[in-house]
Amino acid sequence: MSTVKTLGLLGTGVIGAGWAARALHFGVNVVAADTIPEMEAWLRSAVANAEPALARLITAPLPPKGQLSFTTDIMQMARAADFIQENIPEQLELKQRVLGDISRHTRPGVIIASSTSGLMPSDLQRSMQLPERFCVAHPFNPVYLLPLVEIVGGELTTAATLQTASDFFRFIGMHPLRVRKEIPGHLTDRLQEALWREILHMVNDGVATTGELDESIVYGPGLRWAGMGTNLIYHLAGGESGMRQMLAQFGPCLKWPWTRLEAPELTDGLIDRMVEGTQLQAAGRSIRELERLRDDYLVAIQQVLRQYNVGAGATLRAVEDRLFADASKAAQQLVHDQSGPMRVLTTQVRPEWIDYNSHMTESRYLQVFGDASDALFVRLGADAAYRATGRSFFTVETHLTHQLELNVNESLYVTTQILEFDAKRLHIFHRMHRAHDAALVATAEHMQLHVDSNVKRTAPMGPEVQAQVERLAATHAKLSPPRERGRSIGLKRVG
Amino acid sequence: MSTVKTLGLLGTGVIGAGWAARALHFGVNVVAADTIPEMEAWLRSAVANAEPALARLITAPLPPKGQLSFTTDIMQMARAADFIQENIPEQLELKQRVLGDISRHTRPGVIIASSTSGLMPSDLQRSMQLPERFCVAHPFNPVYLLPLVEIVGGELTTAATLQTASDFFRFIGMHPLRVRKEIPGHLTDRLQEALWREILHMVNDGVATTGELDESIVYGPGLRWAGMGTNLIYHLAGGESGMRQMLAQFGPCLKWPWTRLEAPELTDGLIDRMVEGTQLQAAGRSIRELERLRDDYLVAIQQVLRQYNVGAGATLRAVEDRLFADASKAAQQLVHDQSGPMRVLTTQVRPEWIDYNSHMTESRYLQVFGDASDALFVRLGADAAYRATGRSFFTVETHLTHQLELNVNESLYVTTQILEFDAKRLHIFHRMHRAHDAALVATAEHMQLHVDSNVKRTAPMGPEVQAQVERLAATHAKLSPPRERGRSIGLKRVG
Repeated sequence: MSTVKTLGLLGTGVIGAGWAARALHFGVNVVAADTIPEMEAWLRSAVANAEPALARLITAPLPPKGQLSFTTDIMQMARAADFIQENIPEQLELKQRVLGDISRHTRPGVIIASSTSGLMPSDLQRSMQLPERFCVAHPFNPVYLLPLVEIVGGELTTAATLQTASDFFRFIGMHPLRVRKEIPGHLTDRLQEALWREILHMVNDGVATTGELDESIVYGPGLRWAGMGTNLIYHLAGGESGMRQMLAQFGPCLKWPWTRLEAPELTDGLIDRMVEGTQLQAAGRSIRELERLRDDYLVAIQQVLRQYNVGAGATLRAVEDRLFADASKAAQQLVHDQSGPMRVLTTQVRPEWIDYNSHMTESRYLQVFGDASDALFVRLGADAAYRATGRSFFTVETHLTHQLELNVNESLYVTTQILEFDAKRLHIFHRMHRAHDAALVATAEHMQLHVDSNVKRTAPMGPEVQAQVERLAATHAKLSPPRERGRSIGLKRVG
Repeated sequence: MSTVKTLGLLGTGVIGAGWAARALHFGVNVVAADTIPEMEAWLRSAVANAEPALARLITAPLPPKGQLSFTTDIMQMARAADFIQENIPEQLELKQRVLGDISRHTRPGVIIASSTSGLMPSDLQRSMQLPERFCVAHPFNPVYLLPLVEIVGGELTTAATLQTASDFFRFIGMHPLRVRKEIPGHLTDRLQEALWREILHMVNDGVATTGELDESIVYGPGLRWAGMGTNLIYHLAGGESGMRQMLAQFGPCLKWPWTRLEAPELTDGLIDRMVEGTQLQAAGRSIRELERLRDDYLVAIQQVLRQYNVGAGATLRAVEDRLFADASKAAQQLVHDQSGPMRVLTTQVRPEWIDYNSHMTESRYLQVFGDASDALFVRLGADAAYRATGRSFFTVETHLTHQLELNVNESLYVTTQILEFDAKRLHIFHRMHRAHDAALVATAEHMQLHVDSNVKRTAPMGPEVQAQVERLAATHAKLSPPRERGRSIGLKRVG
């Protein structure tokens, strides 16, 4: 448990509300103070809006949610809080005055932190009582989802303050980044601001639109930055000798007008710092290992984005739609020639499919079998166009058996066989095989109901689909029935 | 199909090899030319290394892979290719000479593109024959995974060339971004370069290390940039009036020394362009809708990163480990008090769990049931510490029944019940309920084997685990047996 039972918030705009949602979710009470009483309703609605995303982010069991209260009396908040976070407008004198005032109403051990984007802690703590318990704690929007918080101490801040503040932010799921030197904009906003001002110049000069400039990030560098920063990414781009090679190759570009920002002289001292820094980051991992990590997360992120049809995910979805359409056309022509269980799917075990036993996790078996069912439906003519009429197959019952484990990157394929059917039902059987030796890995037996969502109940298949089912089932009837057909689970049976 | 059957590559470094891997994967043949014969082995190994990631990225069925051949004779490549991509070092005169040479050996309709990071197409095409079929096509490392390619025409380039090139890149899964004005560094590298030079200044000034500066991106803005660029992100930060409000609020910061790059004057004209641009990007979606999209992908990306324990995913994993450890301690104390089916898990249907029928997809049922099994094992004392000794439970057989559909964001819980056990086996039964009305949604019956990975076979449970199983089973024996116990699948039975 954290020693902070109650977080005091000063200012309840987007940032203040983000802090409130995050703290409440981790079981910390929040007393929010704002001089404008109307902000209470806004705050409560912003917290409610943040809640579903937070609930999906944290899948582990949480303590009971904290209690939210609101006051227009700042000093009442100051007296109630175990930790205070200030989020008022970016005006130095305003912040100085208010921080000074509340510092005279808090208990001595209470840390007071400011969310300031760029003001310096030494300037902010000047008129405070006990200024040693003040620091900057700069979060990023949405505060309830992004883990970064920059922690910056001023001249009068103690090390104990920075440590206690960091512990609290870690408790509410954040990543405290200790900024060792005071500098306007801290670290993150300096990097963001350089990019932002270059954008403004290009829009101002009529070179590109805001949309084009956003595309220039989200389809490329932005995907990489979700998992690795520029320094480690460039270390990887340098081949086996990493950052040193990269600086030798692209060093001359620093003199070219590739941005309006002039680079520092690339001295031997600077090169050494860049190389030593990235070597520390690599922490003994080879370029090849780091490349594999980068590739793994780039694949996984694009697949996540595909689900939301955003950025690179939209590109991936479009190309896959085309590939599926091509394959579906080809498969329709093949369906009459099938004898034996049809091979409907080939895939590979992905790193994110692996469980704590280092094998493919059980739900992924059903995911692959589900994809195999979908591939069968497409061959039967129950494709996206058919589903657009409101008709599709729903699984009502499933029986899985596991015979072998699968390891990461192993290739596998699935065959399928129709066992029985009537106008509204389809009884099918899939086998999953390891590709390299055709060994049987798992089986899935499914009962599928044909449903019409227009009438919200089961309905006969379309005549063209049923005709395909009949044709295929006639072929499959010649195959011997699967050993695992019609199994039930019990100790005696398995024993 | 693309009209490009054979892609010619000039230069086989990291970028050339990335192009090769991508084109081959989409069924395009590649003729790679490099004057250094040793590059052939390097190229083939780089293509082989890219293959697993590409195979995992594209889950749709692909045409047969293209054929890769290598030559040290550049003109042989030029004659064989339907499209040529140049990837030699960033030296203007060298590129001009080589591009001029190959342009005299290609058929007239063949497009010649350059991967240059920052040189301008008008300069590059000067000494070419038929310069109208030349353009810049600037990709990003790793070329086989990142979809972005900047397309820039020179003064002599025709619109048809840009169109045909874009079509080809789209065919191999990329997002062509048309850059409308020639400018050193095109668009993307100007933005990256501004950020990079600011990094170099800060390392040079001793403000921060490369590692700290990377953290300042990956735990915050980098997560956002994977799905939205700075302009749309700032539009969202401005509240209901979007970019206009944001510029009013943060405009003054443009005068502050938050980076060494000076901003342009924030004129009314510039403000209008920024506002109009971001309004086009929003495409009629409200701030609230865009926030929801942003939150959805931020949640999903962090969960993907958790699997690789990288960046924000490592933060999430650490906080969840702590929460699970707390819950496991609390649960251990509760296990003796359980009567009736125990509630072992509560969760919520996430947007990425939804299938094309707008309901929870079937593999997610098994994922939730698998999490319920894990929660049961923890209560039995078969937790991470127990697994570290090499012992754990493996599912060998599963029977699922579906009774109701679940919609996005619905809350659900799972109860569990031990049906039978012996020294090495556990027969359990889960029920999934909708939280709001306790309606039964689905059931899962599992046979679990207790396995010792040290001897690679089934083994008796540890005595402390078996004692917990006995205690719980004795309580559960008083419950009536589940209606769905021991079911098998078949038309007659279901009918």
